[in-house]
Amino acid sequence: MKFKPLKGTKDFLPAEMILRQQVIEKIKTIFENFGFQPLETPALESWEVLAAKGAGGEEILKETYSFEDRGGRKIGLRYDLTVPLARVVAQNPDLPLPFKRYQIQKVWRYGDVAKGRLREFLQCDIDIVGSASMLADAEIIACAIACLKALGFEDFVVRLNNRKILNALVKYAGIEAAKVLDVLRSIDKLEKIGRGGVKKELKEKKIPEKSIGKIFELIEIKGTPDEIFERVEKLIKDFEEGIEGINELKELIAWLERMKCSKYVKIDLSLARGLDYYTGPIFEFFAEKGIGSIAAGGRYDKLIGLFAKKDLPATGVSLGIERIIEVMKERKMIETKKCKTKVFVACASDEVRNKILEIVFMLRENGIPTDFDLRGRNLTRQLKYADSLGIPYVIIVGKKELEAGKVKIRKMDEKKELELEIDEILKFFEKGSLS
Amino acid sequence: MKFKPLKGTKDFLPAEMILRQQVIEKIKTIFENFGFQPLETPALESWEVLAAKGAGGEEILKETYSFEDRGGRKIGLRYDLTVPLARVVAQNPDLPLPFKRYQIQKVWRYGDVAKGRLREFLQCDIDIVGSASMLADAEIIACAIACLKALGFEDFVVRLNNRKILNALVKYAGIEAAKVLDVLRSIDKLEKIGRGGVKKELKEKKIPEKSIGKIFELIEIKGTPDEIFERVEKLIKDFEEGIEGINELKELIAWLERMKCSKYVKIDLSLARGLDYYTGPIFEFFAEKGIGSIAAGGRYDKLIGLFAKKDLPATGVSLGIERIIEVMKERKMIETKKCKTKVFVACASDEVRNKILEIVFMLRENGIPTDFDLRGRNLTRQLKYADSLGIPYVIIVGKKELEAGKVKIRKMDEKKELELEIDEILKFFEKGSLS
Repeated sequence: MKFKPLKGTKDFLPAEMILRQQVIEKIKTIFENFGFQPLETPALESWEVLAAKGAGGEEILKETYSFEDRGGRKIGLRYDLTVPLARVVAQNPDLPLPFKRYQIQKVWRYGDVAKGRLREFLQCDIDIVGSASMLADAEIIACAIACLKALGFEDFVVRLNNRKILNALVKYAGIEAAKVLDVLRSIDKLEKIGRGGVKKELKEKKIPEKSIGKIFELIEIKGTPDEIFERVEKLIKDFEEGIEGINELKELIAWLERMKCSKYVKIDLSLARGLDYYTGPIFEFFAEKGIGSIAAGGRYDKLIGLFAKKDLPATGVSLGIERIIEVMKERKMIETKKCKTKVFVACASDEVRNKILEIVFMLRENGIPTDFDLRGRNLTRQLKYADSLGIPYVIIVGKKELEAGKVKIRKMDEKKELELEIDEILKFFEKGSLS
Repeated sequence: MKFKPLKGTKDFLPAEMILRQQVIEKIKTIFENFGFQPLETPALESWEVLAAKGAGGEEILKETYSFEDRGGRKIGLRYDLTVPLARVVAQNPDLPLPFKRYQIQKVWRYGDVAKGRLREFLQCDIDIVGSASMLADAEIIACAIACLKALGFEDFVVRLNNRKILNALVKYAGIEAAKVLDVLRSIDKLEKIGRGGVKKELKEKKIPEKSIGKIFELIEIKGTPDEIFERVEKLIKDFEEGIEGINELKELIAWLERMKCSKYVKIDLSLARGLDYYTGPIFEFFAEKGIGSIAAGGRYDKLIGLFAKKDLPATGVSLGIERIIEVMKERKMIETKKCKTKVFVACASDEVRNKILEIVFMLRENGIPTDFDLRGRNLTRQLKYADSLGIPYVIIVGKKELEAGKVKIRKMDEKKELELEIDEILKFFEKGSLS
């Protein structure tokens, strides 16, 4: 085929779109239920915004689509929805705070398509700007949990960590401050490239063998939250930031307890998150059975300050909607259909072709999605068409019946037919006999 | 301000988004009512697709964002939704025909922002692929009319023309076939740059003075459809294509008559449409009172053949949704609100802060969008926040009332308060006293 969608991009045909719309509608309802309001920002941003120091960071910029526009200005396609949010908040200082917004839009990353990653994909984000309280992080996590539950997920875990603890751990391991982010980016790949891979990367980054050993000793501490906190507290007691991070997680877990969400939560000190801008709690949602990460986020108290005169605390989560939809399809967690049309009005002979329009428009005016033949086909082929689209009902209009003010209605899955007065058609569909 | 959205792009804050969502929801409902199914395609397309000869044409390519991706491949951001549709249809030869799809997505054009044009804007398209019948064009026009009516528009006109007639007129004026598209592109600007501007452009394109005179004599013929057809038929009787075009319009108008839509329709021989791909009827919807074009489209029977082995007839319309929304805002045709939250649960003292979560989650679990304080503020400031967002109800939770199992509910616009048992809260909102 000569003309294809670009590598890493996809067309969504009706059956797929109807499914996607259902999932997104459910998520939107939960977002709004939790008091989040919609926001949209442009796909194109200036390079200064995308590449601001402390925003996404160098790892993500390697994957960012960038180019000069026709005016010679360097611009790019957004790689996430968080950096644009920070710009919006900076530019709108009169927004009532906290600003709770949701945003469901495409992002672009020139990643490795071999692993089934798309280069243009949908993100579903919620963020709370203007609250430093762990209650805001709890609200974010609770809302994401409510979304997953509404979609039918049951077996998932929220892994929690805190950048402040990680910073302290890295310092405890004897690594200089300038290299902290670099080390975190390697730790973040543990799931992807394994222990060996991370160690190799750290060696390449000239981290001493001894420090690498210490890091692994720490990030692999397991247990209940209390057990983990106790052990880590002893090790990093000299690093104020680390203690602060532990206290934040304790408070966060207490709020999640009150929100009946703590049973999903697990402390995981190896969780690092790849983006530079995180400053506090970070979290990642994993579905079991090898599916991996389906949502992730964290607190980023310094990001908005990059674009505004002063810092504003913020926290948020991004649902991995593309993966969520894939899993829901595989597990048949959602009904699929090829079309939303309820009725096809077919004509049994050419003489009634003009007449069926009245029935079509009567149905449409009463809110019943209706289709009819646009190709001058015979009845058999009209029925075949309606069937291929999965339209549940066909009204068959014949010359003789029409003269008697009547039509036939066929329920396609049962192949049953019923004769009906034209005046009774609406009543038939109002009875709710339609799915 | 240092960091802004790029020129010609816009952030849509919640109040604007809520309004946009309402408009789009209404349009989607009508599209589905007429049997159109959703489709989405990538924002990024290969340059071969966007620049295929006979697709959008050179005028639009001047405004198209194009660049090399990180793999060195020339790509671009789509300038419309029709060319991507043609590619999709070509690649999916098994789609049941006619394929009726709607598509509501952003497109990008590097146009002149001085005139209030956006460079990133939403398009709302419906198209029917696989029917050569004028009934399909009538269905498209009827659906667009139904949308405008559902949104509250009454005073609009559908201007109709046919590329076949225009081709014949241009030949009648003695212009060589190779220059037809170029001349049509100039005629298309009549509304924008006026008679003088078009004449000047045609002179620059080396069209003889005499031909320019003939063109204007023809495209300015006015009257009822029948009067216009009669006059034009005489002039172009030697050009078979022109007669075919007139017959198509006659048939189209007859179908629109049966669909109760003909009262909106007017023949306008100066209508040309800027894109290259049109081959048959073309149409443009104008709202009165200086608002200009709010929808436009036409038949393009050769476009799909550019990407597939054989031609497939197709027709469609694009709603100028950005302009439609602007007009609806100006004319106050739509209710605006800053947020969709129904209730804010406020705490009157710090002692009850943990307790309000139970009320919040009870409301949310029953589908009532609910918010609460995340900043540890006092009651006055909580009420001020709820008011600034326009949340209609506040539940005030005080220590004394709570001990008696009670709360207060305040209806914000009336400043009225009511004391209620906690058990009665849900009943209160179920009664439908909420807007």
